[in-house]
Amino acid sequence: MTAPAYDDQNIFAKILRGEIPSIKVYDDEHTIAFMDVMPQAEGHVLVLPKAASRNILDISTHDLLHVSETVQKIARAVVKAFDAEGVNVIHYGEPAGGQTVFHTHVHVIPRFEGIPLKPHTGGMADSDALQVQADKIIAALGN
Amino acid sequence: MTAPAYDDQNIFAKILRGEIPSIKVYDDEHTIAFMDVMPQAEGHVLVLPKAASRNILDISTHDLLHVSETVQKIARAVVKAFDAEGVNVIHYGEPAGGQTVFHTHVHVIPRFEGIPLKPHTGGMADSDALQVQADKIIAALGN
Repeated sequence: MTAPAYDDQNIFAKILRGEIPSIKVYDDEHTIAFMDVMPQAEGHVLVLPKAASRNILDISTHDLLHVSETVQKIARAVVKAFDAEGVNVIHYGEPAGGQTVFHTHVHVIPRFEGIPLKPHTGGMADSDALQVQADKIIAALGN
Repeated sequence: MTAPAYDDQNIFAKILRGEIPSIKVYDDEHTIAFMDVMPQAEGHVLVLPKAASRNILDISTHDLLHVSETVQKIARAVVKAFDAEGVNVIHYGEPAGGQTVFHTHVHVIPRFEGIPLKPHTGGMADSDALQVQADKIIAALGN
């Protein structure tokens, strides 16, 4: 497979440049995390490297390790914030792998017994509700 | 959530101790990767840390970063080995998150357009067929 080149007009690149708003929960030198606006569950967060890459196939190992560290922080925080019973960490690479936005991102989703994930195309979440969730995650990160 | 303690009688701990066979594709100081015996697609590999942990919630960041590095190597190798069009990287944490073996592991699954994943309970794969796939992945890792 020859992957297409990175396109800096993707929606996450625009969020990273501040051209489109997002509901952030975490921000450091190399990574950022914000609420998924089409959540598969309450507390569904996306973790991104700030540097450009499409997915795990082309990201530098350096950036990947920063993403992994942030993913762990967020996984622990969402479990704490929502008193979750489990967590899913999912990366979709390329369209055949289910990827729809071509800036590397990892889904971190708190899970509860007996509550299946909603489809990712389940529609836009209410911003106020997402902000309430974000505040809980930010509080959990701070402890 | 208070996670249960690590139980060293889990099947992956037995594989790591060599008490149960596995079809390995990669082995280094900190990590190992072998074929999933209940694959969701051709080329489905599991990446594990050698050190004991249940999942992303309790693994040391040090071990997690070694796992992440190996996951990237395997992701690139399975795409190359099977000329795949995409890849999925999935981690299930705790039973509510779909985890069934409680030693940290990451699923790396090559993907193709129009071919959905099989359920993970789809049954045991033929060992000879898995070995053929493993040989392709090992060859891709070597290049």
